[in-house]
Amino acid sequence: MATKTKSTERPSGLSAEDAATVIEILQERLNAYNDLHLTLKHVHWNVVGPSFIGVHEMIDPEVDRVRLSADAVAERIATLGGSPRGTVGAITKTRDWADYPLGRALVPDHLAAIDREYDRVIADNRAAMDALEDADLVTQDLLIGQTGALEKFQWFVRAHLETAAK
Amino acid sequence: MATKTKSTERPSGLSAEDAATVIEILQERLNAYNDLHLTLKHVHWNVVGPSFIGVHEMIDPEVDRVRLSADAVAERIATLGGSPRGTVGAITKTRDWADYPLGRALVPDHLAAIDREYDRVIADNRAAMDALEDADLVTQDLLIGQTGALEKFQWFVRAHLETAAK
Amino acid sequence: MATKTKSTERPSGLSAEDAATVIEILQERLNAYNDLHLTLKHVHWNVVGPSFIGVHEMIDPEVDRVRLSADAVAERIATLGGSPRGTVGAITKTRDWADYPLGRALVPDHLAAIDREYDRVIADNRAAMDALEDADLVTQDLLIGQTGALEKFQWFVRAHLETAAK
Amino acid sequence: MATKTKSTERPSGLSAEDAATVIEILQERLNAYNDLHLTLKHVHWNVVGPSFIGVHEMIDPEVDRVRLSADAVAERIATLGGSPRGTVGAITKTRDWADYPLGRALVPDHLAAIDREYDRVIADNRAAMDALEDADLVTQDLLIGQTGALEKFQWFVRAHLETAAK
Amino acid sequence: MATKTKSTERPSGLSAEDAATVIEILQERLNAYNDLHLTLKHVHWNVVGPSFIGVHEMIDPEVDRVRLSADAVAERIATLGGSPRGTVGAITKTRDWADYPLGRALVPDHLAAIDREYDRVIADNRAAMDALEDADLVTQDLLIGQTGALEKFQWFVRAHLETAAK
Amino acid sequence: MATKTKSTERPSGLSAEDAATVIEILQERLNAYNDLHLTLKHVHWNVVGPSFIGVHEMIDPEVDRVRLSADAVAERIATLGGSPRGTVGAITKTRDWADYPLGRALVPDHLAAIDREYDRVIADNRAAMDALEDADLVTQDLLIGQTGALEKFQWFVRAHLETAAK
Amino acid sequence: MATKTKSTERPSGLSAEDAATVIEILQERLNAYNDLHLTLKHVHWNVVGPSFIGVHEMIDPEVDRVRLSADAVAERIATLGGSPRGTVGAITKTRDWADYPLGRALVPDHLAAIDREYDRVIADNRAAMDALEDADLVTQDLLIGQTGALEKFQWFVRAHLETAAK
Amino acid sequence: MATKTKSTERPSGLSAEDAATVIEILQERLNAYNDLHLTLKHVHWNVVGPSFIGVHEMIDPEVDRVRLSADAVAERIATLGGSPRGTVGAITKTRDWADYPLGRALVPDHLAAIDREYDRVIADNRAAMDALEDADLVTQDLLIGQTGALEKFQWFVRAHLETAAK
Amino acid sequence: MATKTKSTERPSGLSAEDAATVIEILQERLNAYNDLHLTLKHVHWNVVGPSFIGVHEMIDPEVDRVRLSADAVAERIATLGGSPRGTVGAITKTRDWADYPLGRALVPDHLAAIDREYDRVIADNRAAMDALEDADLVTQDLLIGQTGALEKFQWFVRAHLETAAK
Amino acid sequence: MATKTKSTERPSGLSAEDAATVIEILQERLNAYNDLHLTLKHVHWNVVGPSFIGVHEMIDPEVDRVRLSADAVAERIATLGGSPRGTVGAITKTRDWADYPLGRALVPDHLAAIDREYDRVIADNRAAMDALEDADLVTQDLLIGQTGALEKFQWFVRAHLETAAK
Amino acid sequence: MATKTKSTERPSGLSAEDAATVIEILQERLNAYNDLHLTLKHVHWNVVGPSFIGVHEMIDPEVDRVRLSADAVAERIATLGGSPRGTVGAITKTRDWADYPLGRALVPDHLAAIDREYDRVIADNRAAMDALEDADLVTQDLLIGQTGALEKFQWFVRAHLETAAK
Amino acid sequence: MATKTKSTERPSGLSAEDAATVIEILQERLNAYNDLHLTLKHVHWNVVGPSFIGVHEMIDPEVDRVRLSADAVAERIATLGGSPRGTVGAITKTRDWADYPLGRALVPDHLAAIDREYDRVIADNRAAMDALEDADLVTQDLLIGQTGALEKFQWFVRAHLETAAK
Repeated sequence: MATKTKSTERPSGLSAEDAATVIEILQERLNAYNDLHLTLKHVHWNVVGPSFIGVHEMIDPEVDRVRLSADAVAERIATLGGSPRGTVGAITKTRDWADYPLGRALVPDHLAAIDREYDRVIADNRAAMDALEDADLVTQDLLIGQTGALEKFQWFVRAHLETAAK
Repeated sequence: MATKTKSTERPSGLSAEDAATVIEILQERLNAYNDLHLTLKHVHWNVVGPSFIGVHEMIDPEVDRVRLSADAVAERIATLGGSPRGTVGAITKTRDWADYPLGRALVPDHLAAIDREYDRVIADNRAAMDALEDADLVTQDLLIGQTGALEKFQWFVRAHLETAAK
Repeated sequence: MATKTKSTERPSGLSAEDAATVIEILQERLNAYNDLHLTLKHVHWNVVGPSFIGVHEMIDPEVDRVRLSADAVAERIATLGGSPRGTVGAITKTRDWADYPLGRALVPDHLAAIDREYDRVIADNRAAMDALEDADLVTQDLLIGQTGALEKFQWFVRAHLETAAK
Repeated sequence: MATKTKSTERPSGLSAEDAATVIEILQERLNAYNDLHLTLKHVHWNVVGPSFIGVHEMIDPEVDRVRLSADAVAERIATLGGSPRGTVGAITKTRDWADYPLGRALVPDHLAAIDREYDRVIADNRAAMDALEDADLVTQDLLIGQTGALEKFQWFVRAHLETAAK
Repeated sequence: MATKTKSTERPSGLSAEDAATVIEILQERLNAYNDLHLTLKHVHWNVVGPSFIGVHEMIDPEVDRVRLSADAVAERIATLGGSPRGTVGAITKTRDWADYPLGRALVPDHLAAIDREYDRVIADNRAAMDALEDADLVTQDLLIGQTGALEKFQWFVRAHLETAAK
Repeated sequence: MATKTKSTERPSGLSAEDAATVIEILQERLNAYNDLHLTLKHVHWNVVGPSFIGVHEMIDPEVDRVRLSADAVAERIATLGGSPRGTVGAITKTRDWADYPLGRALVPDHLAAIDREYDRVIADNRAAMDALEDADLVTQDLLIGQTGALEKFQWFVRAHLETAAK
Repeated sequence: MATKTKSTERPSGLSAEDAATVIEILQERLNAYNDLHLTLKHVHWNVVGPSFIGVHEMIDPEVDRVRLSADAVAERIATLGGSPRGTVGAITKTRDWADYPLGRALVPDHLAAIDREYDRVIADNRAAMDALEDADLVTQDLLIGQTGALEKFQWFVRAHLETAAK
Repeated sequence: MATKTKSTERPSGLSAEDAATVIEILQERLNAYNDLHLTLKHVHWNVVGPSFIGVHEMIDPEVDRVRLSADAVAERIATLGGSPRGTVGAITKTRDWADYPLGRALVPDHLAAIDREYDRVIADNRAAMDALEDADLVTQDLLIGQTGALEKFQWFVRAHLETAAK
Repeated sequence: MATKTKSTERPSGLSAEDAATVIEILQERLNAYNDLHLTLKHVHWNVVGPSFIGVHEMIDPEVDRVRLSADAVAERIATLGGSPRGTVGAITKTRDWADYPLGRALVPDHLAAIDREYDRVIADNRAAMDALEDADLVTQDLLIGQTGALEKFQWFVRAHLETAAK
Repeated sequence: MATKTKSTERPSGLSAEDAATVIEILQERLNAYNDLHLTLKHVHWNVVGPSFIGVHEMIDPEVDRVRLSADAVAERIATLGGSPRGTVGAITKTRDWADYPLGRALVPDHLAAIDREYDRVIADNRAAMDALEDADLVTQDLLIGQTGALEKFQWFVRAHLETAAK
Repeated sequence: MATKTKSTERPSGLSAEDAATVIEILQERLNAYNDLHLTLKHVHWNVVGPSFIGVHEMIDPEVDRVRLSADAVAERIATLGGSPRGTVGAITKTRDWADYPLGRALVPDHLAAIDREYDRVIADNRAAMDALEDADLVTQDLLIGQTGALEKFQWFVRAHLETAAK
Repeated sequence: MATKTKSTERPSGLSAEDAATVIEILQERLNAYNDLHLTLKHVHWNVVGPSFIGVHEMIDPEVDRVRLSADAVAERIATLGGSPRGTVGAITKTRDWADYPLGRALVPDHLAAIDREYDRVIADNRAAMDALEDADLVTQDLLIGQTGALEKFQWFVRAHLETAAK
């Protein structure tokens, strides 16, 4: 029976350098997603105002999607032979953006703040997609799908913010 | 609170030129899909002949798939900051192919006509896929999946048309 | 086995004149419904503003209902021995109303425009119901149910448009 | 955007007089249904005797059906431009029948009392059906279906009350 | 407690003459439906030929529909105070049409034979619908819906029988 | 391609004599089951009395089971190369028992009459099981399962008929 | 066999005085709940304004919850040996609050009025919870859960009413 | 790695004395529940008489509930560090009540006997609830819910036993 | 109506001697199954060790299967005219095997003990199967299916116990 | 704990000789089933012609059934203490029939070829059924059910091949 | 319409002091739960070793439960008029325990570490339960249920850690 | 009607050379997948040892996934105009790897052997992905998704094999 530890193994056909590159990129995405789903839940609880119920309910399926994205990214790290870090400490160690600024606040204020969070996360996702082109098509494909879903939710957010100049 | 109109915004990390290119490509696909699902329903209602029931029922799930593809494409346009056009007038304004030619007709005649519709739609989809390679991977990935599904249905159609060389 | 074409047959107990009358009426309803579900989807994609999500989601089940109504009406035409026309060309050939006027616009503008579309479709449905009284009770019953559902959705639309006289 | 109140609007193709007539008729049906589903629940809780469980369980789906009928009738009033009244005060203001007479009692006594409630409600429904023939076929069709369901439940009730003359 | 037999009671608001008329009409429909669902199952088991599977599977949901129609008609008889007769003997006592003529036979032969059965049943249904106009709208509405469903299935049957005039 | 008719073929490994024997036995079972499910529905509609609802509802799942048994038996006949006869005429041609005797009647009377029907059907099933021991184990196994289910339902029927000798 | 009436019996281990106290408290809760679910449905039908659909749909699951609470409270009364009163007359006999004041009105007006109804019902529920501490822990636990659910819905209502002091 | 056996551990914040007290109480409840669900199944199989089917079917969901209660109680014992005893021998070792007295018997006799079983079990449950007040609120809450469910089923049982003194 | 007690009746076509034999055999199987599902639950609660969760969860569906087998066997006894005994006392009266010996114990110890229980139950089932060959094929078929399921679970148990001789 | 390997153990009450016989028979059935479900999928992909869709879809549920049969047979081998061989090599080692002969071909050609495959598999199954009569009734019962299902599918296949002698 | 901000309102019948106390307690529980579900997912991704799959899958439903507990606690804070803090920053501001210590590690090491996390969370929950006794029974009841669920999961964890002293 | 055979047709916009290249690549993948799902089932049946149940159950969903991958690949071949070969003979004709080596064996031995199978299949999949970049993006996208899923399952397998270096 196998006696050596297998944690450094990676998929056959993928070089050690590529695997290390991908793992590093994905750990950043994992941090961003874990921070994001906590933030979205926080908004879910603190949003108020005349159109409360629609926005309150619109956020929950997005929380689920972001959590599934975090899960997929973390399990991809493990599949590549890495050790995904998912604790609070992992997030705070490298986070270079500020904690979400609002507490209890009205719908349009929260939506505008979420819009800014998504600008940051999506820009980083697109940079990661480019960086993965040569390293690993499987991981790139995973991020392409997740990015498309994030962008669609951002459309929902932005659609609320439009007020025509009539 | 935000006071300016947001309808020209696009995902962070995507240039204005790329966004405009993608929107133009997708509006053509939307027209093609809206025309196609109306046509498929039309066949669903007008096909007759000895193998009626199988073909009648085979078309309905494809109608649903094409409608979902139209929805995904139109929502992608909105996500990119564009305004998708989905009315009858939008289709007729740029349509450069003829209205579906058959009314009540036998199964093999309708299947041969559908086969020709799919030849046109798929060729245009593949050209769009190529054009999107540099503009937006998220949109390209969306069209790749839809094209594969259209091609599979075309196989179903063609499989009925084969008659051994006896 | 049977060698003659059966496409002109109708249900036993229904005269040829009545069948022809009903088919003509239903083809108009089919055109109206096909135009309407495309229009509703178009609004679904283009509506924006502070109460976006509720209205965006309210439209989708109505799209499904109108598509089911179109399907029922078209299959009734076929049942009566007619050939339902469901292509874009069929709609434009006899359409005597303008293409839906709005693109990307705020919620109340779209709702007011939908309200006008429903005024037209429902008035035509009620005229058709009356015309069918003597021709075919089965078809009349079909339209009665569809009209009731359209009117209920119009109530949803109108309820949004009320603003108290302050 | 629209500034006038829309609450007096009605479906296109329906006269103001007919709408007023239908609303008045439906408000009476709403009162009867709201009274009836409370009464049925009351019986559900107070019936006892050797065949308790079958009758206890038979009532619950009928409660649901009557509540759905009340909902459909009230929403039809709103669709016609009226304001349905659904509070306790609305019922007592015009009720011309006595409160349900029994408390805890045996199965056959409750069933006989329910039978009398249904005699009253059904007779009023049938009168309403006739009165709606010229005013609004959509509403009439709604009541026809509800009346058929009430009559079927009354058959269930009456079937228990038969005891052969041995 | 109630001591008299209740089996002759009818819905309040319906005359004894009308109830008797409706019951008589419905007993004929019950016989027709019971004969029909047995016949359809018989065909389900005996049909053979190159397009076997589609036709074999198309029949089963229609069997279920016809059985549900028989159930609804019979329970309506009981609701009106009558005693529905559902045995083999009830069918044979008044049946004025011949037993289904085919055993194991090819698809087009069975479909042509079913087409003739439906001609008879639908013509009788339409006559019953007319006769019920003045007697009982609830029962008429029941038959209208069932007739529409039967006519739709007949379209399915007839669609298989068309063969182009080549 | 195959040109000869295949309707006389049977499963490989089963002799022509055994197949003929089994088909004959199963046609008798099919007649009994078709008669029985019509009878059970007839009782479902005509039973009355203080414990109506429990018995009325107890019969419907048994109707479904008997119909499934008829279907399985008929499809087994076809599998063995025979042509199952499922029409009213097939039943009356060989039926050696009387039509079900009761119309509208009280629960215990109907249950006692059903009990007698089951005595007949089960005794014939058990005789058929014995006769199939040497002819075809597959068919025998089918009947064993159906017989066990019929006997269980008969226990339900009989359990209602017990009245302690106090 | 048991010959005496059992309606005054209560759970073993619960004194007659405690049972009487609990029944009295619960009858008041039943009246409040029955009044409340009628009122909520009334609002469901009469609310209008720009955020109609979200509030219209938010109320229906709360109606279901309140009806389930009424059912649980009434069945607890019966379990304790009492006779729950659920008719319109039962409500009006002891009701010390006014009928719901609004008819067709805008969203914020209805929400503010509902908020006041909940203030009353919740205050009474909390008083009942205290009173039940010594009498019956099972009933107290039932009310604790129901009170928590009512308070959560009131948060939904109140969240809509906040408008920042800008 | 942990090398010592952990079976004596308990939740943090709960004293060893309290844990021991709770475990002892729960083992008695487990014995009572295991005995009760066997008894209820026994009645399910042995009850006969005119209202057989309703009572036969009423018992099965209660069997499931009691089995779930037994499971919850036993797993709570394990959670507290104890070893739940669930065999036949565990029941007989401490059982101080007689085996259920009836075999095949009529409905009212079985219901009266079940009523007595529930009197015993519920009284013991209420005593246990009191004893747990100071020891462990989590366990007490578990028993409160189970006791309420048992009392509700006893109401079902008792409701059948009432026969008015008319 | 029927006045004699029916509890000694049996299926038509089965002799009194055979029925008595089968009932006696099945009562033993019922005792074994009731003992077994209590034992399996006991293990479910008391098993510990490194592979806890898999074994803990593997047992629950088997508990359900054994309970369903007990139910089927007991209802077969009733169907044959017997009175199944399902109480604790019924088990202990004839049980000739010891109570399950283990309390809290490690996975392999419990699995080895379960393996021995299954050896006993399966051997007795196979003896019963043989004894039923001539008495009642329906009952034999029931036991054959149950025995196969028990044997499959025993394979699951045994598969855990293998440790290769390396 | 147990240290010896258990792989040679068998169900109690089954002799070593019988177990060995059954295992050998089942390994042959496993090979036949694994070959058959691969073949059926192969046909599913390669069939073409005018009635393509019905036959294409008819095959998939049969693939599932054959795979479930393979699973049941293999797990029965393990239950009896044997080691089922399920690899490609296991099939080819003893296979005495030719690989399926057709590639892309028309419907009737594939159906005729499948018919021949089923003749072989069913004949072998029936021989196995006979051989198991004395060795193990549990295994025999398993094969009887699988054989009946295979024969029913063969009826579907053959029904397509019939062409009347015109 | 209401113009003042409502965020400081609380349920009627609850004092401002009690509300403030409860909110403070719940914010601590929210922090603990948010930290815990991140930690559990981290373990889900990093656990390895021979019993990997069981433990990997056992954690996911617990993650869902803890997330639902966090949601319930946060929504209770909002219901009481407070503003729940759910971001990473909220956790780190008051957290007085260390980040989870392990990365990729074997099953027993992770389980032992989780066991210690649960010891801390449960002890704090029990202290909160006591502190809520006088402040708010609704909130206390919420925590009682959550604590019981946490303790049950800890039993699962501990059960894996036992290794007999052989 | 079309008379020529269509089997050499391919999607519009794809060259004949590219189609031929893709078909060849996919036939190799089909062989690998068909071999793999047979092998995985073989392991499912033959794995034994202390952690049997978790691994036994972990394999079945992977079997389903691999079978779905085979189906998708084969149908893609047909869509491209090729004829997929799925028989045992197709696998053995080109297979250049040995049959799976183990029979009944312990969990870690089987997992290590599966790990080696996955190394081979994944390396070939990655080579195929590269080769498809220029030939057909639709097919490449299909393989990218399948490869990701295979790699994730391999992580599950490898996670079991780790044993810390203590």
